Amino acid sequence: MDYKFQTIGLLGKYGDPRVTDTLTHLATFLHRRRLRVLVDEKSANALKGHPSAELASRDKLGREADLAIVVGGDGTLLDAARSLVDSGVPLLGVNQGRLGFLVDVSPADMTQRLEEILCGRFQEERRCLLTARVVRDGVVIAESDALNDVVVHKHDVARIIEMQTYLNGDFINTYRSDGLIISTPTGSTAYNLSCGGPIVHPSLDCLVLLPICPHTLTNRPIVVDAAGEIEILVTGWHSDHTPVICDGQVVLSMEPGDRVVIRSKENKLQLLQPVNHDYFEVLRAKLGWGVHPT
Amino acid sequence: MDYKFQTIGLLGKYGDPRVTDTLTHLATFLHRRRLRVLVDEKSANALKGHPSAELASRDKLGREADLAIVVGGDGTLLDAARSLVDSGVPLLGVNQGRLGFLVDVSPADMTQRLEEILCGRFQEERRCLLTARVVRDGVVIAESDALNDVVVHKHDVARIIEMQTYLNGDFINTYRSDGLIISTPTGSTAYNLSCGGPIVHPSLDCLVLLPICPHTLTNRPIVVDAAGEIEILVTGWHSDHTPVICDGQVVLSMEPGDRVVIRSKENKLQLLQPVNHDYFEVLRAKLGWGVHPT
Amino acid sequence: MDYKFQTIGLLGKYGDPRVTDTLTHLATFLHRRRLRVLVDEKSANALKGHPSAELASRDKLGREADLAIVVGGDGTLLDAARSLVDSGVPLLGVNQGRLGFLVDVSPADMTQRLEEILCGRFQEERRCLLTARVVRDGVVIAESDALNDVVVHKHDVARIIEMQTYLNGDFINTYRSDGLIISTPTGSTAYNLSCGGPIVHPSLDCLVLLPICPHTLTNRPIVVDAAGEIEILVTGWHSDHTPVICDGQVVLSMEPGDRVVIRSKENKLQLLQPVNHDYFEVLRAKLGWGVHPT
Amino acid sequence: MDYKFQTIGLLGKYGDPRVTDTLTHLATFLHRRRLRVLVDEKSANALKGHPSAELASRDKLGREADLAIVVGGDGTLLDAARSLVDSGVPLLGVNQGRLGFLVDVSPADMTQRLEEILCGRFQEERRCLLTARVVRDGVVIAESDALNDVVVHKHDVARIIEMQTYLNGDFINTYRSDGLIISTPTGSTAYNLSCGGPIVHPSLDCLVLLPICPHTLTNRPIVVDAAGEIEILVTGWHSDHTPVICDGQVVLSMEPGDRVVIRSKENKLQLLQPVNHDYFEVLRAKLGWGVHPT
Repeated sequence: MDYKFQTIGLLGKYGDPRVTDTLTHLATFLHRRRLRVLVDEKSANALKGHPSAELASRDKLGREADLAIVVGGDGTLLDAARSLVDSGVPLLGVNQGRLGFLVDVSPADMTQRLEEILCGRFQEERRCLLTARVVRDGVVIAESDALNDVVVHKHDVARIIEMQTYLNGDFINTYRSDGLIISTPTGSTAYNLSCGGPIVHPSLDCLVLLPICPHTLTNRPIVVDAAGEIEILVTGWHSDHTPVICDGQVVLSMEPGDRVVIRSKENKLQLLQPVNHDYFEVLRAKLGWGVHPT
Repeated sequence: MDYKFQTIGLLGKYGDPRVTDTLTHLATFLHRRRLRVLVDEKSANALKGHPSAELASRDKLGREADLAIVVGGDGTLLDAARSLVDSGVPLLGVNQGRLGFLVDVSPADMTQRLEEILCGRFQEERRCLLTARVVRDGVVIAESDALNDVVVHKHDVARIIEMQTYLNGDFINTYRSDGLIISTPTGSTAYNLSCGGPIVHPSLDCLVLLPICPHTLTNRPIVVDAAGEIEILVTGWHSDHTPVICDGQVVLSMEPGDRVVIRSKENKLQLLQPVNHDYFEVLRAKLGWGVHPT
Repeated sequence: MDYKFQTIGLLGKYGDPRVTDTLTHLATFLHRRRLRVLVDEKSANALKGHPSAELASRDKLGREADLAIVVGGDGTLLDAARSLVDSGVPLLGVNQGRLGFLVDVSPADMTQRLEEILCGRFQEERRCLLTARVVRDGVVIAESDALNDVVVHKHDVARIIEMQTYLNGDFINTYRSDGLIISTPTGSTAYNLSCGGPIVHPSLDCLVLLPICPHTLTNRPIVVDAAGEIEILVTGWHSDHTPVICDGQVVLSMEPGDRVVIRSKENKLQLLQPVNHDYFEVLRAKLGWGVHPT
Repeated sequence: MDYKFQTIGLLGKYGDPRVTDTLTHLATFLHRRRLRVLVDEKSANALKGHPSAELASRDKLGREADLAIVVGGDGTLLDAARSLVDSGVPLLGVNQGRLGFLVDVSPADMTQRLEEILCGRFQEERRCLLTARVVRDGVVIAESDALNDVVVHKHDVARIIEMQTYLNGDFINTYRSDGLIISTPTGSTAYNLSCGGPIVHPSLDCLVLLPICPHTLTNRPIVVDAAGEIEILVTGWHSDHTPVICDGQVVLSMEPGDRVVIRSKENKLQLLQPVNHDYFEVLRAKLGWGVHPT
């Protein structure tokens, strides 16, 4: 059989026994097809003693795999995407029975979908990631990537913060709010949606700027070109220790006078989806979007 | 002259030199009318050496004053209201040039308005306050009043919390969100408005329940009777150290298994407003509510 | 058996065969308990030849019935409420398998619930209705009641209208929008909800004012006391033939210079609900309010 | 002098005396620079007897002009854009003292800006237009272009309509609402904004789908690629005479079974703006976007 991918990386959510089962199942499935299997070190416990369990660091996996299969929820895939985007290896997400936007394949029909995908029948999407850099006195002091969103958030639970924002050096607005979300299309269905932002089709190259609980009646989300550079200065009182949060995980910290600069990464994530993947159906099934209750 | 109020308490925002000027001006004005003036100890520095500067603790001021004049912003009046509501002394708010919902009298026409009010020409409003009690193993371990709102908020900036809510023991809903606001009509124009809640006329006896950035598309604010008892249980992960915030100031803390019980106070705040006070005009002037930009 | 109600009126949605079945079933049930049954003339076809089919005009039914049972959806009950509110007869709603806010009893457990209610075991709610009067040159030229809402709406599909609004003569705001909804608590879950208004518990005596698609960023719903008189003047261009819609049914028409005056009716609707009626459960079940899709 | 444009078309809002003044002023200004001036026939009255008043049909103007100057508001420019987009002539908007999104040049500094623009100093934007076609039994029976938006709206003021929507043949959702807006980035600050949609930067090639007052809690605007074909079927009751509105002006009509197909035009509008044009500043100045009232 002539497969499109010869070396397959396996990654999974740590410490979830259902993930262990699925990874073992996948390893066996791939081994039988005489494909090389690299297992992410952090997920290695899951596959101790498996004949195909060739351990690999995330770096090695990125260098040598032709395809990486990620087992878990959207959060697991976000993590894999940030660490593998620069290697160019395409990702395929397998969920654990609970549909995700990024992990559409379910364990139940996993082997059938995987057979199709190995034979080259899949949809390939290119997703934009962001890089957030905290700049102090002209020097980048912290940096992180994000597939969903970069959030600047108040530190003190009872205080709002003030943020001056710029697009390619042009002043956008001063936000006084609990925070500000810079969301990719991928992230538009995550925190952006909770805070009142629009859904943005993942095929688009744009970003949503959305203040969180703004201290004015006149705010609205704005959608801008992803090619632009966004700059945020936290000003005024209560601007100490302002956290900058990437994908709800990685936290940088800003002090007064610092600014955070956000740009799209040149490298896009290659996300594989089964041929029957239907974005609008996921929206309706997962969010109940537009669904009429009775 | 036969004045309606004989003993006047004076309170002001700490450390604001404009407040000092206004308090001194007020003390002189009242002294000349042979009215007794009690100065809040915390504001005392402002009036050192003033002939009328009889210092009083907040308690004494509550017991002996017939009227308390509060100089500052809405925040200053919120603080005075919480400490004086049980004494029954009516409050009059004087702003510092920046209109507030609770402090409508401006320094410019302060003496004229005050003359009218001392002579009994004013609007008297009765505002509802809330008491929030944190209950652990059946025992109240912390308690605070609020004139604007009680907010249960996530502690970890990158995590949502889950809250089960009840009204008089009837299950309302499970909120998964950044937090939950229980707002009085007075507080409806504060944080509630930032988070998408409705404006509620202060004459009404009701509360607004509003989740902050809810993790579902189907949320809406709900307005319920202020006579009911609201109970909130923080459940699930990330429920350690959950802060309970009263008027954006006083912070209690909940641990897993605790619940916060919120009831209206029997004692209402008596808030005096000048006869020409116009609630809708304040809405338009302060919030730009419904105002067309061009 | 000593029943609380001796004469029972029956009303149903016209021309729905399921309603015919339910009405026949109800008539037989009541006849066996030797209760007098009055059948609304407009629903009479349904019960031709039934031993208990004593026809009655809506007026007679209002005068002589101790209880009116309304079979259909919320719309059927809205219609019955408007025509019977002044008679003081309490209403009980029976739905046709599809839960409503006003029609909570389902055909499946109808006889059991009815037995309980006839024996006096029920919740009694008092719901506020509105009267809208169109005034031209000081004379009322048209008038209608509403249980849900009074809506002033643009006539020309491609034009906005401008409305000056007053509460007890105090200017509220000028709305430029597709229209304006004045909603009771009962109506808060109807059109008000579609247009972004809050849910208001039906036990409250208040109204929601909500512009439809307002031509400004600064609008927000406002909740005011139901005891007040609301006055709306349609001004500016495109104000010819402006419809005034009560409960989505009854349409009055305004011309330039006319005003519509809206007041709560003194007579409240008595709405009976089964003892296990749970408003929040209906909210969750019917609207999916706060429900998490996956 | 070597000007970039040799033949200039002039168009204006009909019947506005201020527009007449501005057009006359412009004609004189251009005449002095020995440029050929073509005056839109419909605006001709304005320039009767002017030495440069060479009348032209809209078609001729489109064929022969190198630049068309449009005097009026955004509505005037929308009309000019629809009629001239296929000719490829760039448009420049001059407002009448009231800033518009499309007409940024004011009469006060018109001649200075125009001098710059004639010399080639301007920003050139390319704006996407839509074509809406009503299809009956496979045949296009009506068609119109739109620069802002295509709106399908209920005909009966008291009824909602149901619309099945597709993107490139993929089912999006069934909307039950007062209508549905398909908005370009240009139109995102028009009716889309009134109905709760996001602001979309005009440089983007995307569309916003937004239901008007939807009959469910779970709706959200969705932003999709402008390259796709959107198809809308009006289904269910109340679908007679459903109007399809382009830019709030041109009205087509749908009957049950008809569908409306919406595509981006291949020809883009070339819109010239002065070099100091600042989109975010217009947002703040015209909408008060993000502006803090006090």
